[in-house]
Amino acid sequence: MPVLPKIIEGKFIADTIKDEIAVEVRKIIASGKRPPHLVAVLVGMDPASESYVSGKEKACKQVGFISSVYRYPEGISQEKLLEVVNFLNNDEEVDGFIVQLPLPEGLREDVIIESIDYRKDVDGFHPANAGRMMKNLPCFLPATPMGILTLLERSNIDTEGKNCVVLGRSNIVGTPVSILMGRKAKPGNSTVTLCHSKTKNITEICSRADILIAAIGQPHFVKADMVKEGAVVIDVGIHRIPDNTSPKGYKIIGDVAFDEVMKKCSFISPVPGGVGLLTIVSLLQNTLKAYRKEIYP
Amino acid sequence: MPVLPKIIEGKFIADTIKDEIAVEVRKIIASGKRPPHLVAVLVGMDPASESYVSGKEKACKQVGFISSVYRYPEGISQEKLLEVVNFLNNDEEVDGFIVQLPLPEGLREDVIIESIDYRKDVDGFHPANAGRMMKNLPCFLPATPMGILTLLERSNIDTEGKNCVVLGRSNIVGTPVSILMGRKAKPGNSTVTLCHSKTKNITEICSRADILIAAIGQPHFVKADMVKEGAVVIDVGIHRIPDNTSPKGYKIIGDVAFDEVMKKCSFISPVPGGVGLLTIVSLLQNTLKAYRKEIYP
Repeated sequence: MPVLPKIIEGKFIADTIKDEIAVEVRKIIASGKRPPHLVAVLVGMDPASESYVSGKEKACKQVGFISSVYRYPEGISQEKLLEVVNFLNNDEEVDGFIVQLPLPEGLREDVIIESIDYRKDVDGFHPANAGRMMKNLPCFLPATPMGILTLLERSNIDTEGKNCVVLGRSNIVGTPVSILMGRKAKPGNSTVTLCHSKTKNITEICSRADILIAAIGQPHFVKADMVKEGAVVIDVGIHRIPDNTSPKGYKIIGDVAFDEVMKKCSFISPVPGGVGLLTIVSLLQNTLKAYRKEIYP
Repeated sequence: MPVLPKIIEGKFIADTIKDEIAVEVRKIIASGKRPPHLVAVLVGMDPASESYVSGKEKACKQVGFISSVYRYPEGISQEKLLEVVNFLNNDEEVDGFIVQLPLPEGLREDVIIESIDYRKDVDGFHPANAGRMMKNLPCFLPATPMGILTLLERSNIDTEGKNCVVLGRSNIVGTPVSILMGRKAKPGNSTVTLCHSKTKNITEICSRADILIAAIGQPHFVKADMVKEGAVVIDVGIHRIPDNTSPKGYKIIGDVAFDEVMKKCSFISPVPGGVGLLTIVSLLQNTLKAYRKEIYP
């Protein structure tokens, strides 16, 4: 019997959660309090960063959050940027903030990120949050891995005891999602294998996966022969490739060769319309938690 | 051709490193400075903790470190213990310290551990160190996982591109060693699968491992049928079982059924005489790094 693949409804899930957050914000405002406030610090004019930050602003507006963007020129000194972070750490009107990465050359990302008060680190990039994640303690989870968990959870996909293969070991997606999928938690409790550039027999490893998470940063890397019949496939890649048939002149594709893979899998998250939409939603969820001091008093 | 297994010489490796540290300490003293100083905080009278702390004191003496033990009764309040930690954080004569776990009931381990200045956290248990480890940044590595890496490195075992299976996902051993073995580093760069209580087909997964790290806490869990011909087997378990033939009335065994497994593997670390000896050595190495402010200025 052929498997009938279900496309994971990233947009529907993201919209549902935003509606849920909006309800909470209306209650907050009705009680006479100010709404949650998220700040993005944006250095320079990187187009991808601009696009992400404007998506964030739009999402904040949709749910009723206050949203600020602090812009600085590419030439800002590290000292000055640390002052900005320190100012935000101490500003009681700011619940959470992110310093948009990548930073221009000459600025030490690790130093800047570690200077953020981890209680306002709604991106979940501070080592204190990463370390608490590893120890399965309450923390701000990094936005994209958290979005992947949300997609699985809201699609009622059981992860316990499943073989999960993660492709790519980046600090931002692959490594943390491999930890989260293996933790004693729900979603979680999978048997996780983390693959990377040094992995041999990658096709064989992937073809054993019940859940395959592709975050390897290579367009259409995952082909049908790498996917087990009935597997769940989560595509984290975002690549812009030329396309003459599109009015924009390009189209967005993922790390998974969607058309051929969807014939074999049970669930698949599309690109666009999948994980990407959940990343910003995770940021909103973390900001609401920061506002409520749910994780750190 | 039968594989000729080599027993990893934990004692030889540990003694060699202690000798190397002792040379450094003599240089420090010759230059007129005080030697490194490690403090253990011990609450209550847990026999395993007493044994570990006395092993630490002995090792410190061997290499020329100053070693202190701060003892407190089981009934110490959390507030008082936090004061002790704070005192040690600020004591310039102390380079590194550990709070021996487990703590008696009523004391919040996570709160105590997070109150330690991560720059003196030579156990590598503070989330800031765990998070930096995850991000492949310089940090204090947790002692037992670090000891496993040392055994592999000093035995010239190549880990790059190997399939590594870790049994057990504890915060102290399994989870961190799975991260370390998969990092872009040497030793590291393995394709790691982390197994735990929810893992299915565990025998099949283990039998694909080039490197098998057993930290599951069950005596003789790993049998010969779980081990690939020529695999490297690292045994982290320590179990005391009754033995009438021994003058002590007991013997120490590991998570691996040594006699049958050693016939199949290429390298095996014994219990006792393997990983356990390296744990304290890692603590000495971290304390020397803390003294020299090699990781954190």
